[in-house]
Amino acid sequence: MVDIATRVYNHAFKIDPIIRSLIDTDFYKLLMCQSVLRNRPDTTVTFSLINRTKSIPLAKLIDEGELREQLDHARSLSLARGESTWLRGNTFYGKRQMFSHTFMEWFEALRLPPYYLERKGDQYELTFEGKWPEVMLWEIPALAILMELRSRAVLSAMGKFELQVLYARAMARLWEKIERLKKIDGLRIADFGTRRRHSFLWQDWCVQAMIEGLGEAFVGTSNCRIAMRRDIEAIGTNAHELPMVYSALADTDEELSDAPYKVLADWHEEHSGNLRIILPDTYGSEGFLKHAPDWLAGWTGIRIDSGDPATGAEIAIRWWKERGEDPRDKLVIFSDGLDVDKIEELHRRFAGRVRVSFGWGTLLTNDFRGFAPNDGLAPFSIVCKAVAANGRPTVKLSDNPLKAMGPPDQIRRYKRVFGVGEQEELAVIV
Amino acid sequence: MVDIATRVYNHAFKIDPIIRSLIDTDFYKLLMCQSVLRNRPDTTVTFSLINRTKSIPLAKLIDEGELREQLDHARSLSLARGESTWLRGNTFYGKRQMFSHTFMEWFEALRLPPYYLERKGDQYELTFEGKWPEVMLWEIPALAILMELRSRAVLSAMGKFELQVLYARAMARLWEKIERLKKIDGLRIADFGTRRRHSFLWQDWCVQAMIEGLGEAFVGTSNCRIAMRRDIEAIGTNAHELPMVYSALADTDEELSDAPYKVLADWHEEHSGNLRIILPDTYGSEGFLKHAPDWLAGWTGIRIDSGDPATGAEIAIRWWKERGEDPRDKLVIFSDGLDVDKIEELHRRFAGRVRVSFGWGTLLTNDFRGFAPNDGLAPFSIVCKAVAANGRPTVKLSDNPLKAMGPPDQIRRYKRVFGVGEQEELAVIV
Repeated sequence: MVDIATRVYNHAFKIDPIIRSLIDTDFYKLLMCQSVLRNRPDTTVTFSLINRTKSIPLAKLIDEGELREQLDHARSLSLARGESTWLRGNTFYGKRQMFSHTFMEWFEALRLPPYYLERKGDQYELTFEGKWPEVMLWEIPALAILMELRSRAVLSAMGKFELQVLYARAMARLWEKIERLKKIDGLRIADFGTRRRHSFLWQDWCVQAMIEGLGEAFVGTSNCRIAMRRDIEAIGTNAHELPMVYSALADTDEELSDAPYKVLADWHEEHSGNLRIILPDTYGSEGFLKHAPDWLAGWTGIRIDSGDPATGAEIAIRWWKERGEDPRDKLVIFSDGLDVDKIEELHRRFAGRVRVSFGWGTLLTNDFRGFAPNDGLAPFSIVCKAVAANGRPTVKLSDNPLKAMGPPDQIRRYKRVFGVGEQEELAVIV
Repeated sequence: MVDIATRVYNHAFKIDPIIRSLIDTDFYKLLMCQSVLRNRPDTTVTFSLINRTKSIPLAKLIDEGELREQLDHARSLSLARGESTWLRGNTFYGKRQMFSHTFMEWFEALRLPPYYLERKGDQYELTFEGKWPEVMLWEIPALAILMELRSRAVLSAMGKFELQVLYARAMARLWEKIERLKKIDGLRIADFGTRRRHSFLWQDWCVQAMIEGLGEAFVGTSNCRIAMRRDIEAIGTNAHELPMVYSALADTDEELSDAPYKVLADWHEEHSGNLRIILPDTYGSEGFLKHAPDWLAGWTGIRIDSGDPATGAEIAIRWWKERGEDPRDKLVIFSDGLDVDKIEELHRRFAGRVRVSFGWGTLLTNDFRGFAPNDGLAPFSIVCKAVAANGRPTVKLSDNPLKAMGPPDQIRRYKRVFGVGEQEELAVIV
């Protein structure tokens, strides 16, 4: 029986919206947004979308009109009543009322600010300018829209049957990964794959697969909408944009060298327990830890997001020992370019020495490698970052020089101020 | 939107019928049925279902009540008008009106005859007795019902998500097989997988995958309902039951040794071209060919259905040469226990020397090996054969002694009459 009403209802859509909710975003964005709204509400920032994989000609693949329709649709969204209820009433990281009344009122009134889009050769220039708390919320939807429009462009050339086989293969591949992960005793792993997902529906499927396959070992998702829909934990703490913007706002080298610690001092006031996770690599992990104040060693854990992950974890373990802390009480969250081999290897090496956890991103929610003609669905490296704050450029160094961002003279200055020496170059996969 | 009407409609089903059409059967059954109706309409036969894989306790897995409901439902079916139109109006093997008016009138009035079901330990004894043309039509539906009820029994213990992954894996596996088959230049392959399929819907999916993936290399399906539904060729010629019953009816050893040739003489009168395919192995291929009349060497081809397939084909090639025929004009159809490795190997060896074709069965339509707990969906060896004709037992020897059937004294007699010597034992997979 054909359901005519459904058919007609579907006809009435002008587009198939990629972003259908303001909480289809990463949990840490909301935590950081609340912090920014409290501490730096009037900062003006510019976020810019950067495709690090120039071989993918996004402007040739994606129609500009369609991209505008998707971005416009995201701008039409406001927080739904049920979403607000969930944010206000849910327990996050064991804490009730994680989000203040002030933040929630502001969020309920929010619409995403304007965007600036221009085609430059085979790439798009997509930027967002305005108040930091508003502009920062564009990052995840902008990335998800670009990623999914690229998927759709490739999929549109495939037949109905090919599509069915494509998803069957992707499901089979993910399930094989999950069966390997199942065997890791004491595994703790979360979905961090929103920003570079194949599509929303696919991410949602992947999360269900993790729930079904891993049980307790799957600790949650960074995606708030999926966490709400699947009734699981929303996961995440903070990211590079806080030290990047704080640092750009510093007036002197002394203020600059102190900025990353100022970020964590603010965070320390606001959060406790498992939310106290150090992200040390913005301007080189080694120097950051060496010069860190003692109270930071008391934090719960560290997130390793660039450089060789085993080296990063060893540095952290050494640092905790030097500061009189027992690493076995500490949480190490690996979140950079993970797939099953790497997860197995890192777990084998660090389980028991520290509390190990994994934030699995692109190769969880977007592993269609080898499945489309010309490998057209292979994941690629796209980011949306704060590039300026109050008119000054931002800088990111990280533990991999290939991930460094900012004007060359400022990169030199930051390297000097933060005492960053030689760094190992590591290929950026995703 | 929930389609309430569909929901309610589904509720109204007492069961989910496995067999929903009298032409959900193999094409060669209908060809043979027409021949039997013309030549031996009054023969009384007994068909019996035999599970050769005793380790699968069918009576423990499958509820007797459910089995009866499915068999009863099959008995309630009659030829639908559209099906009759298709059989009457379609071209089979390039021939119009393959089925005579007499046969079609008989078939339109047919209902499947009664069955006799009894539980014996962990197995079922399922037999059918009556007029040969009616009873023979039970073979395929009986096998398909048992196979699918076993699938359902295993699947019923699985969650919705596990089921989705199961089918995703099976789809991915089949597609990988098809991608390997695609690379075989000049391949000709048909679906012969009705009898031991996982389920009707799955066979239908497999056929669509073959159409989509192999194009012209996929020559059709043995299943009439799927051939009609997907508008492709119905494939098949004849099977062991003809020589087995003809032989059982023989009164003397001399008549017995002539019976298999009598079958083909009748067939010769009725059919030409690609329907003239010798199935030589019922009582040993080598002896059968050695004593065959010369006119049989003029037939189009041979089907290799037991024993080592390469040996069987070499014997046939030698025989054609001895009889002054050019093997390059002859068709060799391999149809026993095939999977991709074997297909590749046989094609490599025989392409160019003969016209090669494949009838791919169980490992096309039922390869769920390794996908269910305790490998509960692995295919197994189940047959439904004529075991008696006019009160006399039938015998099958084949080219593999492990496939021999019949009372021991009769097997000895047949071996003597047909001059069958030493035979190589080969494991029966499916």
